Amino acid sequence: MSKVLRVIKIGGKVAEHDATLKAFLREFVQIKGPKILVHGGGVIATKIGEKLGIKAELLEGRRVTDRATLDVVSMVYGGLVNKKIVSALQALDVNALGLTGADLNVIISKKRDEKPVDFGWVGDIQKVNATALLNLIESGVVPVLAPLTHDGMGNMLNTNADAIASFTAAAMSKEMETELVLCFDQPGVLNEGKVIPKITMPEYQKLKEAKIITDGMIPKLDLGFKALSEGVLNVRITAFDAVNENHKGTVLNYE
Amino acid sequence: MSKVLRVIKIGGKVAEHDATLKAFLREFVQIKGPKILVHGGGVIATKIGEKLGIKAELLEGRRVTDRATLDVVSMVYGGLVNKKIVSALQALDVNALGLTGADLNVIISKKRDEKPVDFGWVGDIQKVNATALLNLIESGVVPVLAPLTHDGMGNMLNTNADAIASFTAAAMSKEMETELVLCFDQPGVLNEGKVIPKITMPEYQKLKEAKIITDGMIPKLDLGFKALSEGVLNVRITAFDAVNENHKGTVLNYE
Repeated sequence: MSKVLRVIKIGGKVAEHDATLKAFLREFVQIKGPKILVHGGGVIATKIGEKLGIKAELLEGRRVTDRATLDVVSMVYGGLVNKKIVSALQALDVNALGLTGADLNVIISKKRDEKPVDFGWVGDIQKVNATALLNLIESGVVPVLAPLTHDGMGNMLNTNADAIASFTAAAMSKEMETELVLCFDQPGVLNEGKVIPKITMPEYQKLKEAKIITDGMIPKLDLGFKALSEGVLNVRITAFDAVNENHKGTVLNYE
Repeated sequence: MSKVLRVIKIGGKVAEHDATLKAFLREFVQIKGPKILVHGGGVIATKIGEKLGIKAELLEGRRVTDRATLDVVSMVYGGLVNKKIVSALQALDVNALGLTGADLNVIISKKRDEKPVDFGWVGDIQKVNATALLNLIESGVVPVLAPLTHDGMGNMLNTNADAIASFTAAAMSKEMETELVLCFDQPGVLNEGKVIPKITMPEYQKLKEAKIITDGMIPKLDLGFKALSEGVLNVRITAFDAVNENHKGTVLNYE
């Protein structure tokens, strides 16, 4: 297989609304060649959790995942959001297959240490099963990864979708040329409302020091640069409806 | 592949409690040769639905599935129950893959006619993709089917788990020798508290007329006999913890 693989991630805000999801999927199906879709779902999990009387507790932007919350995210990510995307893709003639890390043992994680902060049933990725994903891709399947992994001991683990996208792209880059596209509800990484078209590693450090890149953008960019350092060809951060327009968004670059 | 495929179905009552699920899975992993697991989850869906303020409405033992209920069953069957089983099987070194009908387009259904009774987003199975399941089985994967299918037009459909097991066994029997095992919380089909070891088609008619077989057992046995008529080698109705004991339970037989 000679084509470039694209690992594309969309956040929960895109998946939450039928209109934005549809707009994204319309673009997604246009992408030629092999592709893997990774989705979030945090916004919906918070809403469903609240209805069930389980209040979302966020620490440093990450969800604290007790047993009840783990059930909520398993339901929302693995059932509701994943199957909405898979059935929509099948209707668009894309042979989608929804996966959590447990399915085909695709991603194994380690429950995060309880110190210094106990995040509960949250997983840090240990290994992405690139062979299993490659077999699927080679038979024309489009894997749709929910932000859930497992520990290999029978427990599901809540896992950050950006991390799943970054680690998956890194693992796949050992097998084939791979690009990573992180899509969200902004047109790219912004400076005074304008998209920064390219960020190098030294520029990233400066933008952090100048507090232009802050909060939730930092782990996202860290994961992007991590993917680059591990062999991913190209990392782009862009709007969910511009996934197909290579000149848009912010491109990360080492040099 | 020369071995006999076993399609095994467990109801929601088995999947609901960690102890019964564990007891079942301990037996399940012992089964040699290729296998497909089909699970229910209605009991849990009713509980979660109630917590979300969505009351289960059952007509003739079947769940009326409005949009809100479809979301609940998508979450509970496709997310919570399916991933609990898949992660537990992976921990037992079984390479499980959770599937709804939408994944790999494995089962396509038609939304049931709204007349005489409108069941909402409920699917009647049209086609099981035996080729996709065969490919998985041949590579050592154990498919774990949730009671959800899709209509090929972007909608998930709530689908009876016994029907999924019966139609899947029938479709697979064209490809390889296939047995169907329907497991539940009783030791078999009962007459005055005792298991009937074998039921032929003429006996089945008499048992129905004598009101010994009633209610929910009728569609279950109808689906069992349907599978037999379409080429399934053997149909057995048994206790969830006796799936491995071929002499137990009730065997259906035409002659």
